[in-house]
Amino acid sequence: LVSPGLALAVKDAKPCRRLILYYHDVMFDGANVANATAATVANATALGNFQFGRLVVFDDPVTADEDLRSPPVARAQGFYFYNMKSDYNAWFAYTLVFNSSEHRGTINLMGADLMMEKTRDVSVVGGTGDFFMARGVATFRTEAVEGAAYFRLQMDVKLYECHRE
Amino acid sequence: LVSPGLALAVKDAKPCRRLILYYHDVMFDGANVANATAATVANATALGNFQFGRLVVFDDPVTADEDLRSPPVARAQGFYFYNMKSDYNAWFAYTLVFNSSEHRGTINLMGADLMMEKTRDVSVVGGTGDFFMARGVATFRTEAVEGAAYFRLQMDVKLYECHRE
Amino acid sequence: LVSPGLALAVKDAKPCRRLILYYHDVMFDGANVANATAATVANATALGNFQFGRLVVFDDPVTADEDLRSPPVARAQGFYFYNMKSDYNAWFAYTLVFNSSEHRGTINLMGADLMMEKTRDVSVVGGTGDFFMARGVATFRTEAVEGAAYFRLQMDVKLYECHRE
Repeated sequence: LVSPGLALAVKDAKPCRRLILYYHDVMFDGANVANATAATVANATALGNFQFGRLVVFDDPVTADEDLRSPPVARAQGFYFYNMKSDYNAWFAYTLVFNSSEHRGTINLMGADLMMEKTRDVSVVGGTGDFFMARGVATFRTEAVEGAAYFRLQMDVKLYECHRE
Repeated sequence: LVSPGLALAVKDAKPCRRLILYYHDVMFDGANVANATAATVANATALGNFQFGRLVVFDDPVTADEDLRSPPVARAQGFYFYNMKSDYNAWFAYTLVFNSSEHRGTINLMGADLMMEKTRDVSVVGGTGDFFMARGVATFRTEAVEGAAYFRLQMDVKLYECHRE
Repeated sequence: LVSPGLALAVKDAKPCRRLILYYHDVMFDGANVANATAATVANATALGNFQFGRLVVFDDPVTADEDLRSPPVARAQGFYFYNMKSDYNAWFAYTLVFNSSEHRGTINLMGADLMMEKTRDVSVVGGTGDFFMARGVATFRTEAVEGAAYFRLQMDVKLYECHRE
């Protein structure tokens, strides 16, 4: 019951839908237009040494395995910024855009990317199309970092509220 | 039942509330302070030719018909940015602010604005006041574009979760 | 029932969980690295005289009482920007990050901060960990403003959808 005030025990909660995805962020360096999928739109401030405030917009490929060259199963469109003065830490808001024979629709997510944690959770706050009205949690795991040029996240998207259109 | 794990068939889903609104974006060009309702806060990057990364903040009038000069029924407050290197594509997060005798409260939305599609859906992720705890989908349709100066979107806001205070 | 199309009367809605928190924003001025917790990443535009478009990223302490020097019970990580040409008005998206013996997890929020109102509501759009799948409303009240250097908000976070893991 969605009746406000009710607390449900979800100890045994199992996702009604789960997607394990890999997010590849290839940073624009001024010369790699053909390959880049993300770009800095506001530079880091001088508040600390961890790029506080640097804002990045992305249209990143999302694959079903770890290989950047695998055919994308979705795009991740959105932004992140760094926001800690004592360590690397980020904040994300973005949309997973599916447009294939398998899935058509979007999943919308936002939350803190606590980069010092091995895994961390952001919220699935909505969805459209095949993911109509979805809600849930996505668990991030950093899988690779190549300096400022590239990083890869595993995104384990678990929906706990599902509807079929 | 909101019990996690349950998938509901919503084949026959009908919105419990629907608002068809028109969003008018009048861009600040440095000289039109009186008329402008949106301004660029971060410039486009050199990643492609479609303004990748340009970030716009807006406080735009929202009307019940297509006429920019009609009395606003709400404001749309938020931001969008362009995020594709091969075409125009955008991403929005914003609040519809209602403050009239008819409606008082807010609706919060976010999602990808896939501009190459005739219609595209973003998520209604929450609401306050008359729209307490709302969830749903808003369908965007581009209705007019006047170069960089103005564009108008139809926003068909369909709530599938409604509560009355 | 979350079945789309159903409108629930929530006249007597009581939060299933409530957190009264105090948010402290100490702005970076170029010299106060040790104390600052927020920084401007995009400057105000010339659209009006109320900092339209100024974008601030923050990692702010959140305390259980009004004293900035009290031990934080959470961090607020996210951003706000000003977006009105005729008055001060802002828009927020952020995460409350809890990492203590009492609470572990995050709450994600977004919405318009209608600064001219004594109180105003933003949406709780999701949560993780101890706040798994939370939804609700947070009421902002400005408590103190010290020029451009500091402001404090009371955030009365009321969850109307609660789940226990």
